[in-house]
Amino acid sequence: MGFFSKDIQTMDDLFVHTLRDIYYAEQQIVEALPAMIAKATNSKLKEGFERHLAETRNHVRRIERVFEMHGVERGTVHCPAIDGIIKEANEIAGEVDDKQVLNAALIAAAQAVEHHEIARYGALISWAEQLGRSDCADLLNETLEEEKAADRKLTDIAKSEVNLEASMS
Amino acid sequence: MGFFSKDIQTMDDLFVHTLRDIYYAEQQIVEALPAMIAKATNSKLKEGFERHLAETRNHVRRIERVFEMHGVERGTVHCPAIDGIIKEANEIAGEVDDKQVLNAALIAAAQAVEHHEIARYGALISWAEQLGRSDCADLLNETLEEEKAADRKLTDIAKSEVNLEASMS
Repeated sequence: MGFFSKDIQTMDDLFVHTLRDIYYAEQQIVEALPAMIAKATNSKLKEGFERHLAETRNHVRRIERVFEMHGVERGTVHCPAIDGIIKEANEIAGEVDDKQVLNAALIAAAQAVEHHEIARYGALISWAEQLGRSDCADLLNETLEEEKAADRKLTDIAKSEVNLEASMS
Repeated sequence: MGFFSKDIQTMDDLFVHTLRDIYYAEQQIVEALPAMIAKATNSKLKEGFERHLAETRNHVRRIERVFEMHGVERGTVHCPAIDGIIKEANEIAGEVDDKQVLNAALIAAAQAVEHHEIARYGALISWAEQLGRSDCADLLNETLEEEKAADRKLTDIAKSEVNLEASMS
């Protein structure tokens, strides 16, 4: 967020501001995922996090392409939402003793991150379409679909393995 | 989150902890919504926020019933995620000058809140089922369905009116 109030005048300003917000968020997620990978002990979950780290690095590059396509300078704005979500993920991970229960907590923490991104990309795509930037909308939609797939995959891992293992601990 | 580390030993502990987390979050949302209602100038959006405030007060009561059904003391834990999401909503609202663009920003901020709740209730329901508490899962699922419906309604208002109005400002 900017230091000067009332610096968003148009829908285009709002789109660019939110693009900078999610650009910051994706970078924070790239930094946060390795610790989650290290803590996960279920092999499917660990692999899922590793795959999503690679995807997230690609999401960063896609946002950079959208900045270029839209002809605006690449930049970040501070995003208290993702900071809070990642802070809560780290706190809960630090409070769980049992490894199986920790896997369940890690899935929930990661799904909070996914849902934040689903909300942000949903808004960005809707605004890009309204602004006549279907090219930007299409590229952002590729990421949105990957975030939704990552969320579904985490639900599958929870329901097929992790929750049962956690309940038996 | 607690002040003592490693205080979550079992899946039941994780369920109760997260129930306290969403109990805190729902209370923060009840406090935050009146300011969003006051700022919204699109009548459908204002009505949607008002209806969701009434629903959210009911979500608080449902969580209290789940505490009772599960036989644990009602309580809250600090939730940095919802604090960050609400902080970001307030910041963006303070940075948008134009009333039509502000409506679009308010919808995106509210959808970030909805998606956080969708993630949290999804995990809680999945854990309640695993713990054999389908009674708690069913009650929490009533709230989850209302959060999903609120999110869809916000998308409808954005696509049918607000985004077009914002793009013409």
